[in-house]
Amino acid sequence: MSLKASQLAMVPFVSVDNMMRLVHHIGMERFMADLAQEIEADFARWELFDKTPRVGSHSEVGVIELMPTSDGALYGFKYVNGHPKNMKEGLQTVTAFGVLSQVDTGYPILFSEMTLLTALRTASMSAVATKHLASPDAKTMAMIGNGAQSEFQCIAQKAVNGVDTIRLYDIDSAATEKCMRNLTDAGLTLVPCTTPEDAIEGAGIITTATADKDMQTILTDNMVGSGVHINAIGGDCPGKTELHRDIVARSTVFVEYPPQTRIEGEIQQMAPDHPITELWQVINGTAKGRQSASEITLFDGVGFAIEDFSALRYVHSRIKDTPFYIDLDLIADPDDPRDLFGMVKRAQ
Amino acid sequence: MSLKASQLAMVPFVSVDNMMRLVHHIGMERFMADLAQEIEADFARWELFDKTPRVGSHSEVGVIELMPTSDGALYGFKYVNGHPKNMKEGLQTVTAFGVLSQVDTGYPILFSEMTLLTALRTASMSAVATKHLASPDAKTMAMIGNGAQSEFQCIAQKAVNGVDTIRLYDIDSAATEKCMRNLTDAGLTLVPCTTPEDAIEGAGIITTATADKDMQTILTDNMVGSGVHINAIGGDCPGKTELHRDIVARSTVFVEYPPQTRIEGEIQQMAPDHPITELWQVINGTAKGRQSASEITLFDGVGFAIEDFSALRYVHSRIKDTPFYIDLDLIADPDDPRDLFGMVKRAQ
Repeated sequence: MSLKASQLAMVPFVSVDNMMRLVHHIGMERFMADLAQEIEADFARWELFDKTPRVGSHSEVGVIELMPTSDGALYGFKYVNGHPKNMKEGLQTVTAFGVLSQVDTGYPILFSEMTLLTALRTASMSAVATKHLASPDAKTMAMIGNGAQSEFQCIAQKAVNGVDTIRLYDIDSAATEKCMRNLTDAGLTLVPCTTPEDAIEGAGIITTATADKDMQTILTDNMVGSGVHINAIGGDCPGKTELHRDIVARSTVFVEYPPQTRIEGEIQQMAPDHPITELWQVINGTAKGRQSASEITLFDGVGFAIEDFSALRYVHSRIKDTPFYIDLDLIADPDDPRDLFGMVKRAQ
Repeated sequence: MSLKASQLAMVPFVSVDNMMRLVHHIGMERFMADLAQEIEADFARWELFDKTPRVGSHSEVGVIELMPTSDGALYGFKYVNGHPKNMKEGLQTVTAFGVLSQVDTGYPILFSEMTLLTALRTASMSAVATKHLASPDAKTMAMIGNGAQSEFQCIAQKAVNGVDTIRLYDIDSAATEKCMRNLTDAGLTLVPCTTPEDAIEGAGIITTATADKDMQTILTDNMVGSGVHINAIGGDCPGKTELHRDIVARSTVFVEYPPQTRIEGEIQQMAPDHPITELWQVINGTAKGRQSASEITLFDGVGFAIEDFSALRYVHSRIKDTPFYIDLDLIADPDDPRDLFGMVKRAQ
């Protein structure tokens, strides 16, 4: 086999274990701050990307989705499931993996776990939205929903926006206790709260990350004061929302990719032409973000393929010359590309 | 970690090397005959499947596609690229890999190379179409295009339909020589031909597997006699055809999934409502196949996600208790599914 072809036959694979090592090697705050920068860089060149709503396969208990995108040089996609009932069975609600490929050859150049990476990029995405939309002096965040995503959100907000105080609330106090325990040495002031009203008291940033697949109203209208920024990231499929529609109506709404958010986000409760601003336009300066101190800004985050692309691109750039991957023999590599059969025959 | 969760964290991976071992372990003829049966079984329950046209990302030099489907219990998808210019660079025109998952949990249960597996299933698919559409006494096949797919087509036709004689033609005689060499001990009578006219002389089955991305006319109308069955499998994207439209017009056309074939197949040359029969209906007895000895039947094969699903299902069923896979640590598996962060933290 030629050297070139043999190298191309192998695809680096980052396992869950190696992703954890990579995160600790880089440092979790640094990792999420870097990811935030990569996401900002890709959002700033948004128009270059080949964008499509995710391709979902729905069942009664969940969904399996493929999320592809390309910037013309690289192609990435993520496989992700969403099964709220999994948690009760001791399984992850969301698991994911992804691939990065060269557009020029179609050959994959990275295969990676993305359960952890999705948690990290989702938190970095919220931090990016917060950076561009919240009051600059907002350093206290209410974290509503203290499940698998919550600690990542808190760390990313600290790393990117200097958030120093977290007010925690979950319908299950054991979740709040777990979150407190995990963040005990994170350099954050942690305030456990027993009601959502208590949690949002004095918080300039509210992040909701709850997971039930019903029309939920975690926050009602009279609870939310003027000037706050809300990241509503738990509602990410049809029928799954977190905010009362009156809050959405009072807010200036910012989204990732409108065709997807209108189906999956908080704005699924609103008219199909409910006004929204695309976040990439705020990032590259072609649209305005927050326009007054009393405005409520809402990042209606559902997660978009470009964020996964940014994350895969970042991991690919950081694993070089590290021990945090193994090579998989994924691509058939015959001496003569027309002689696939001969390769099989000679392997006997 | 619980035993159940730890097992679920691992996903079996079949590399190219292990796929070759599995093929030799089972025997290539048996493997393709089995695959043909699996495809027939899935085509017979066609209406159960969640079907969608493939999701493509096109560039000037090729395409990267995702091909998902589900039968309600299992979900499968294939990643596949098509880059005709790759061959000149010593790379495969088509490479592929795929995943099989449980619909109930969204957890993957198989990750497999599919460059080889696609070649095998494509050949088995042609053999299935031939079984249901060709004259039963057709035992001679013209193989037009002697590239990477050709030998697999010949072996599958022998295994499934008892084809005993192959008449080979390629625009490049070196390809024909390679094909002859690879099939020398396959138990087939091989007849190298220097023109397409010569190759189809006396052949009851004609299979075309050519790869250039232009409107090609490998066979012209006056060359093709009555009663033959044609598998046209090389034309599988917009702008890529192999047959003159007059041949298509004279034939009874059978297809996999009409919304995809009308864009990608030979019938892209015809009117949008050109009459076709869905092959699954022939297989389950709800539509007629060949209706006379003089009819020309044409299987306008472009490859559909259900065939890949059948192939993944087959590989998954056959690797149990074999050494032909390794387990990959692909799924994050915290003790408490809400405690993803704690898992990362404790790994430090």
